[in-house]
Amino acid sequence: MNLTSISTPAALVDTQKMQHNIDRMQARVNELGVAFRPHVKTTKCLPIVEAQRVAGARGITVSTLKEAEQFFSAGVTDILYAVGMVATKLPQALALRLRGCDLKIICDSAAAAQAISQYGQQHSHTFEVWLEIDTDGHRSGLKPESEALIEAGRALIVSANGGARLNGVMTHAGASYDLCTPQALQAIAEQERSLCVRAAERLRAAGMSCSVVSVGSTPTALSATSLAGVTEVRAGVYVFFDLVMTNIGVCDVSNIALSVLTTVIGHQPEKNWIIVDAGWMAMSRDRGTQKQACDYGYGQVCDVDGHPIQGLVMTSANQEHGIITAPSVSADDLRSRYAVGRQLRVLPNHACATAAQYPEYVAFDSAGATQTWPRFYGW
Amino acid sequence: MNLTSISTPAALVDTQKMQHNIDRMQARVNELGVAFRPHVKTTKCLPIVEAQRVAGARGITVSTLKEAEQFFSAGVTDILYAVGMVATKLPQALALRLRGCDLKIICDSAAAAQAISQYGQQHSHTFEVWLEIDTDGHRSGLKPESEALIEAGRALIVSANGGARLNGVMTHAGASYDLCTPQALQAIAEQERSLCVRAAERLRAAGMSCSVVSVGSTPTALSATSLAGVTEVRAGVYVFFDLVMTNIGVCDVSNIALSVLTTVIGHQPEKNWIIVDAGWMAMSRDRGTQKQACDYGYGQVCDVDGHPIQGLVMTSANQEHGIITAPSVSADDLRSRYAVGRQLRVLPNHACATAAQYPEYVAFDSAGATQTWPRFYGW
Repeated sequence: MNLTSISTPAALVDTQKMQHNIDRMQARVNELGVAFRPHVKTTKCLPIVEAQRVAGARGITVSTLKEAEQFFSAGVTDILYAVGMVATKLPQALALRLRGCDLKIICDSAAAAQAISQYGQQHSHTFEVWLEIDTDGHRSGLKPESEALIEAGRALIVSANGGARLNGVMTHAGASYDLCTPQALQAIAEQERSLCVRAAERLRAAGMSCSVVSVGSTPTALSATSLAGVTEVRAGVYVFFDLVMTNIGVCDVSNIALSVLTTVIGHQPEKNWIIVDAGWMAMSRDRGTQKQACDYGYGQVCDVDGHPIQGLVMTSANQEHGIITAPSVSADDLRSRYAVGRQLRVLPNHACATAAQYPEYVAFDSAGATQTWPRFYGW
Repeated sequence: MNLTSISTPAALVDTQKMQHNIDRMQARVNELGVAFRPHVKTTKCLPIVEAQRVAGARGITVSTLKEAEQFFSAGVTDILYAVGMVATKLPQALALRLRGCDLKIICDSAAAAQAISQYGQQHSHTFEVWLEIDTDGHRSGLKPESEALIEAGRALIVSANGGARLNGVMTHAGASYDLCTPQALQAIAEQERSLCVRAAERLRAAGMSCSVVSVGSTPTALSATSLAGVTEVRAGVYVFFDLVMTNIGVCDVSNIALSVLTTVIGHQPEKNWIIVDAGWMAMSRDRGTQKQACDYGYGQVCDVDGHPIQGLVMTSANQEHGIITAPSVSADDLRSRYAVGRQLRVLPNHACATAAQYPEYVAFDSAGATQTWPRFYGW
């Protein structure tokens, strides 16, 4: 592949690998008999989300209201904003809904639920709200067996002309990122499913409506054996995969669709160092593999065709300098094999973090044709 | 200060603190009798660089050619691109020079020097090149006593109508970031100075011209006691400072001019957790204080007026969720003192990395007036 005309560092997307990842996840979710709502925070890129929709995704998940605005403007209407809503963001959410966006918002306390209800009532609008459930202790959410769950639900339906309508529960088993065996992953997927379904059942038993049961993370979506009681699955990073997911065991290094194209700018041969023009600005500061079975430093180094070079990882990174250590290469070999000007590719620890450093992707297909795909950032 | 109308997360700049930092560095460099060339990679923001120029800076340092293009378009002509040049970037560098930009480029090998010379000759242009010197073993650069230094210099002056002109040496003592006592910082500042001056002397003794001796990092610039033989100093992060610099000992927490405004979105009271809408996307993944005397997690939490709240640090971060641990606060106090919707501010580990996550800064002065200052990213 001829990438020499591309200015480095650049975020490359191998569209063949990406499509394989999209098809694999959609096939699994279809097999499990639930709807799929991809999390677009990983890519923030319209052509990629289009590919996910064409494959069968129904609606999207976003992590910022800016994502909601951008994708709604591009024609996506069914959007879940999966970060707890607060009063100051309600005007932005209302504006989207009044423009026709079917935006769903979440909260995990009676206090936040009341703020939504009150704002809705004041503006004669009914927000669709899902309650966030904590199924693994890793972050936000109401405990499925808690009284607080029922209280938060009641705070949403306090009045007949309420400003909010409870319509679902959602959870994200982020603790699955700490696991690495199929058995452990299946167990946490079942925990995610059963506890979220249980929360929905308790709300229904208390007389509340809860039609949606939304679960997901890339590791649990790829490990679940049953999703009984669940109505939809969410996952994000699977579209690119990364080295963290490789260590978890849900993909192979060869599935990783995102890589950073970089150029050798120098050497320190006595230390076996190759210095490249991709530092932490290009890779992100994410060191997600640091505590995993294989620590890839700031990334696994590949040749320009994307084949991993065994033993070469980026061991250190400054803002625009990456230091690649080549442990068993002599000084002369280092200078000739990895000469100044040579291009390399680096696979990221965490695709969401690495992708976020770039205003655009350079997407290439199996014939080597490239396209520039813009992505956005900020809030 | 009334920040309630600002959508969170947001990157706040306290302009009074920033101006104090700018004045402090400029006064020191003036006292040391050398010119000052700030590194603009920290902020990538025109109003801030203007403030540095007004204070006395001469020229700027950039980490990407995009920075060079942006600041040249805004009227800055004297620019050092401080990352090793490679052939693929020479057309972009040439275009800038032909537009009138006094762009200086660097390299640290005869191979890279030859590539520059050849390209210059082919395009009837003479690039001004400085050689990068390794004074502390932390990254790139030629050893001051090496034969490679002389070879690289000769590769630049190989022909009378050469495409390159050697005019200086530069170094960056990045190893100063690993130190934390005034004695150790003074010692590395002197090492940075003496070894870079030595490299210039060896080039001159070999019959080559080397008028510029450029050194710098924020810790060494603030610790040097003499800069004999040096012509200019570079530093970047001092303009904002951060928690890493606080641990190194060159600033106080109260000097940090950059903070992230965030909103409480929930709690997990039994774990003493406050959950906010600033995760690693808002803070960056930088964990620069992890190995320092005081580990601030993902950042030191302050009240909305910027006063640190003792014991409150962001211990964990997901993409758009930050988890703040409040160790000695009861569940009820947690919910009332840090109620859903309350704003907080978080001081960053590493200002360069945190700032890079934002399309704009919200700058505020001592009267509380705010302005939006755009910043750019990408390459």
